[in-house]
Amino acid sequence: MTLRLVPVVAAKTLRRGLSGLDINKRGTPAGEVPVPEATGLAAGAAFLCASLVFQWLQHATGAQESLLPGGGAHAGLVCVLAALFLGFVDDVLDVPWRVKLAMPTLASLPLLMAYTGHTGVVVPHPLRPLLGGLAFLDLGVIYKLYMLAVAVFCTNSINILAGVNGLEAGQTLVLALACAAHSMRVLASLPGAWPAVDAAAKLQAHALSLSLVGPLAGVSAGILCFNWYPSAVFVGDTFTLFAGMTLAVAGILGHYSETLLLLFAPQVFNFVYSLPQLAKIVPCPRHRLPRLDPATGLLHGSNDYNLVNLVLRVGGPRTEKSLATALLCIQAACAVATFAVRHVLAGVYKG
Amino acid sequence: MTLRLVPVVAAKTLRRGLSGLDINKRGTPAGEVPVPEATGLAAGAAFLCASLVFQWLQHATGAQESLLPGGGAHAGLVCVLAALFLGFVDDVLDVPWRVKLAMPTLASLPLLMAYTGHTGVVVPHPLRPLLGGLAFLDLGVIYKLYMLAVAVFCTNSINILAGVNGLEAGQTLVLALACAAHSMRVLASLPGAWPAVDAAAKLQAHALSLSLVGPLAGVSAGILCFNWYPSAVFVGDTFTLFAGMTLAVAGILGHYSETLLLLFAPQVFNFVYSLPQLAKIVPCPRHRLPRLDPATGLLHGSNDYNLVNLVLRVGGPRTEKSLATALLCIQAACAVATFAVRHVLAGVYKG
Repeated sequence: MTLRLVPVVAAKTLRRGLSGLDINKRGTPAGEVPVPEATGLAAGAAFLCASLVFQWLQHATGAQESLLPGGGAHAGLVCVLAALFLGFVDDVLDVPWRVKLAMPTLASLPLLMAYTGHTGVVVPHPLRPLLGGLAFLDLGVIYKLYMLAVAVFCTNSINILAGVNGLEAGQTLVLALACAAHSMRVLASLPGAWPAVDAAAKLQAHALSLSLVGPLAGVSAGILCFNWYPSAVFVGDTFTLFAGMTLAVAGILGHYSETLLLLFAPQVFNFVYSLPQLAKIVPCPRHRLPRLDPATGLLHGSNDYNLVNLVLRVGGPRTEKSLATALLCIQAACAVATFAVRHVLAGVYKG
Repeated sequence: MTLRLVPVVAAKTLRRGLSGLDINKRGTPAGEVPVPEATGLAAGAAFLCASLVFQWLQHATGAQESLLPGGGAHAGLVCVLAALFLGFVDDVLDVPWRVKLAMPTLASLPLLMAYTGHTGVVVPHPLRPLLGGLAFLDLGVIYKLYMLAVAVFCTNSINILAGVNGLEAGQTLVLALACAAHSMRVLASLPGAWPAVDAAAKLQAHALSLSLVGPLAGVSAGILCFNWYPSAVFVGDTFTLFAGMTLAVAGILGHYSETLLLLFAPQVFNFVYSLPQLAKIVPCPRHRLPRLDPATGLLHGSNDYNLVNLVLRVGGPRTEKSLATALLCIQAACAVATFAVRHVLAGVYKG
């Protein structure tokens, strides 16, 4: 559906003047052709259709009660829709930063209401004697505030690690596949590993997660076909905000927000590294992109503080396609490391 | 909040070229000034903030369980957000008609899943002997299809009865106030009038309805201050689709969709009367508006089939302001008639 919708949406956004020049191709003929923006609308529409029909099928076949209870699925859809809407409004009208922080916070309130998981952290085994043998520390409201922060961070973080052909859709695809792998691994481990009541809760949480990251991986792969180097379309904030929020909702309703943050390690690093510019302590241009040498066709790192430029400064000048590939490999390596860390930590936590 | 947001949104949409000429002022100087479009975005954003915070307060104070159970409130928000999003996309990119029918249908599926009310009709007392004494006819799936049709009809019907300064926001204000009056009348009648279990269900349903039509009346009044003759802003499909869907959700989750359709009598008439043109049996121009006589400043009815032109042809030429007032009076008269019909029918149904 995404493959069919993207050209339709791209033609409409181009006609409306929702387009941009490909800054990394400045100085070459390809840098003079306007590229349609905000085509994430096609991916968002396809995702909505998939998840609405999927939820309804689960309901109609009677699976809703056991798998998606307590309005969690609907609360999740509210968040995803709100982020998609905000992203498109931002692409059309340029929303101020404070709105991009306030709106996802408000839109995540239904998520907190529907959240039925734990509100605390498991204490690592070696630390338990220090806390009087306490195995689980319930953080209550603090944990709920933490979840709000996760939702707002994820919604904006993909939008910040961007500006290279294929990077936005590519990192979303890697993240969605990693989340899907995590949920499937937990589901496969369920029989026998947990007490029955815990197993039922985990089944619900990870089934809900899969119902979100599955379609997300699909629409990301679809739009990547157009967004990969050389980009025929730009995905826009419509896609990045929607993708970030969908991953946050999957992590929160799937009860694995800590694992999600490990998977988001490149985004977390990029955000922290960008802070001096985002906070305007260091001058911040509108686009913090590399510099193209038209003679060689290679991108050189600029002085802006972000992961894209860091990779170029550390790894040397390279083509845009090779840069996108390198960034996606880092993303995939972080996913592999996350699963390794989880495997090792499982011993530390369980003793 | 709407009063503060409309000027901000209007400045942004105007800058982006989201504006239109006031067709009913063609030939006068006022007809040459572009008017900002799609400012319903301000009303929609204010509505979202109000209902998200309101739902969260109910949850935080422990009222959620008793008043807004079963994910109904979240399912309703999914529908409202989807309509708001669709409306804004339509204002920016011109969505084809089939999408404006398909998308609200899909978006209403969560509503059907969360619906806990009756799925049938009460048989009027005189007809009961013909049906073997049957007092309640359960229609099952047919009733659910009927609810989908109500959602799709309401979402689009305000959009069709439009094109006169103040008409879109004005009719929404009248309809929202009428729905609020209906819900408050039922809530006031609850003590003593019904068995306890029915009273609890009615309390939930009408509290949910009020939580939707209350904020809707507020944001409609806010935007009407700018949209009333002479319009400083146009509300756009952003507002009409969002307003129509919100009323539909209130009627369905409030279990009074039949009453809602009576309140929508002018929209139902306008839709049926417009059908020959909507179905392209009779030629249909893009805007089916009256004709202005610049010499007198009066609007004359055109040959297009809709309620706006019918009022002008039957009632004679009049100013745009007087035309809007007349149409809103018809809307209010239908509301009064609805309550009278309900009062009379209550006897017929209960015997």
